[in-house]
Amino acid sequence: MTVLVSTKAEALDGWCTGLAAHLPDEVVKPAADAVNDPTIEFAVLWQQPGDLIANLPNLKAIFSLGAGVDHILRDTNLPDVPIVRVVAEDLTSRMSEYVVWRVLDHFRQGRLYREQQSAHLWSERPQLAAGAVSVGILGMGELGQDAAKKLQMLGFNVCGWSRSAKEVSGVKGYSGAAGLQDCLAASDIVVVLLPLTAQTRGLIDNRFLSAMKRKTPLGGPVLINAGRGGLQKSEDILAALSDGRLMEASLDVFEQEPLPSDSPFWAHPRVFVTPHAAAASDPGALARVIAGQIKAYRAGKPLSGIVDRQAGY
Amino acid sequence: MTVLVSTKAEALDGWCTGLAAHLPDEVVKPAADAVNDPTIEFAVLWQQPGDLIANLPNLKAIFSLGAGVDHILRDTNLPDVPIVRVVAEDLTSRMSEYVVWRVLDHFRQGRLYREQQSAHLWSERPQLAAGAVSVGILGMGELGQDAAKKLQMLGFNVCGWSRSAKEVSGVKGYSGAAGLQDCLAASDIVVVLLPLTAQTRGLIDNRFLSAMKRKTPLGGPVLINAGRGGLQKSEDILAALSDGRLMEASLDVFEQEPLPSDSPFWAHPRVFVTPHAAAASDPGALARVIAGQIKAYRAGKPLSGIVDRQAGY
Repeated sequence: MTVLVSTKAEALDGWCTGLAAHLPDEVVKPAADAVNDPTIEFAVLWQQPGDLIANLPNLKAIFSLGAGVDHILRDTNLPDVPIVRVVAEDLTSRMSEYVVWRVLDHFRQGRLYREQQSAHLWSERPQLAAGAVSVGILGMGELGQDAAKKLQMLGFNVCGWSRSAKEVSGVKGYSGAAGLQDCLAASDIVVVLLPLTAQTRGLIDNRFLSAMKRKTPLGGPVLINAGRGGLQKSEDILAALSDGRLMEASLDVFEQEPLPSDSPFWAHPRVFVTPHAAAASDPGALARVIAGQIKAYRAGKPLSGIVDRQAGY
Repeated sequence: MTVLVSTKAEALDGWCTGLAAHLPDEVVKPAADAVNDPTIEFAVLWQQPGDLIANLPNLKAIFSLGAGVDHILRDTNLPDVPIVRVVAEDLTSRMSEYVVWRVLDHFRQGRLYREQQSAHLWSERPQLAAGAVSVGILGMGELGQDAAKKLQMLGFNVCGWSRSAKEVSGVKGYSGAAGLQDCLAASDIVVVLLPLTAQTRGLIDNRFLSAMKRKTPLGGPVLINAGRGGLQKSEDILAALSDGRLMEASLDVFEQEPLPSDSPFWAHPRVFVTPHAAAASDPGALARVIAGQIKAYRAGKPLSGIVDRQAGY
């Protein structure tokens, strides 16, 4: 009868209140009030402590608060119950906003125009048409497909890479290891929306960065990572920025978060840093979606969005 | 048999070549080579000298290189021939790109995150849903309608104001003087895409800025002007930024262009300046559209997009 919630302190109240409002027949408790509580049947989690859910004899399912589940799968004491990721228009839209914002800021030369403004310099730069630029999206699940649709609507060419081949209207699709090289070689701007798994950890390394286009209509390739910090090797990105393999980057995620204050990314003139804020999980919108799954489960219906533990997402 | 072209020196070759490629039966000449040439039947113009087209006895029509025609109508010696504005998907898409880019940069708190990056500060700010914000578009012609559609697709509420009432799906429409006050009071972000006419000159003044919302979900109202510099009063915008009526602005156009190097806009931390670069007129894309009109005229078909000189656009 009990739903346990574990997340960042500042978000905990919002999630408990939101879930309780949609689940009048359940008791909703923050993790601190529910240690080893045998009445707990559902756990709603973001970055749970390692010992939180190991010993819950009646646990039926685990729900992630965000699109990723690597923070849950990291737990070595996971009980054998379904793990469910959240798929919600609210979260998807926020991620697409970030992607469109960053693509446009690189494409429309935001950095150069801000530098010109600092120098009080009035100078119009050549302006490309969106159709002259290709955006490659790595990870063509819910998030990647929505971002692709919105970038296409703005006129960009879009290609996509995913573990298994995906058919998406107007998007040239790549898959597999060779497909990744081809997708990188075809993209002027690379947007990473992959889940963090054993296969994707450290993917954005020297080899990856060397496979990106050298000459692009923008003057050089651009990397946007809104997936997970574990996908990238910071040192390799910094080296690629130095030696010309990479022109600019927007990074929302980092190997170590918070990003240490002495990281060279902070002061790099061609890197835009955000604090893992590409797409916030809004309890006001997402609690309804997760509560809907719990109610469906109670009614004997199947859960949707169950994670494949082998694949890692 | 001759088409005269007058535009900025750096763009002149591109326009002459582009028009000639699409008009094999016409002679295309830059203005300097065609002074008082009686064979000139069509003039393709951007910021022409005042005496350029007064004495062309066989002139049939004037075409603007850009979406606006105020630079043509400023000429006090205009012959009595149709003046035609360019309507082209290429130009419209570029303007919508600028609008979406600037709306997202203000909405996603680009300024604050850039400041935090300078301070090496990792701090996630509350993130609004697009549906919690209203964008008001002033000027709901081709450009405004396309921008509205793209902002709606990203989840924003959109309202629009125009001289004559327009019915656009999902967009609350306003018109007239009272409608302007209502539109400003309903908008968190105001995007100006109006033509410069006797009626709109100086519209963005103290009265206008005082009619904008004071409290918005973003913390204060935002102004984006991609129309014409003559629409705004710089001193009034600076005063509104100082006294809290305006939180941030993106300005692509100015009363005096190039913006003088001592203008306070350059160094204002809450103003983003671009050098009249929101939507470049690309001869590669637009020469085909203008040539198509000339060929239609030759074939006895009507011109489309003829300017109403009384209305001024």
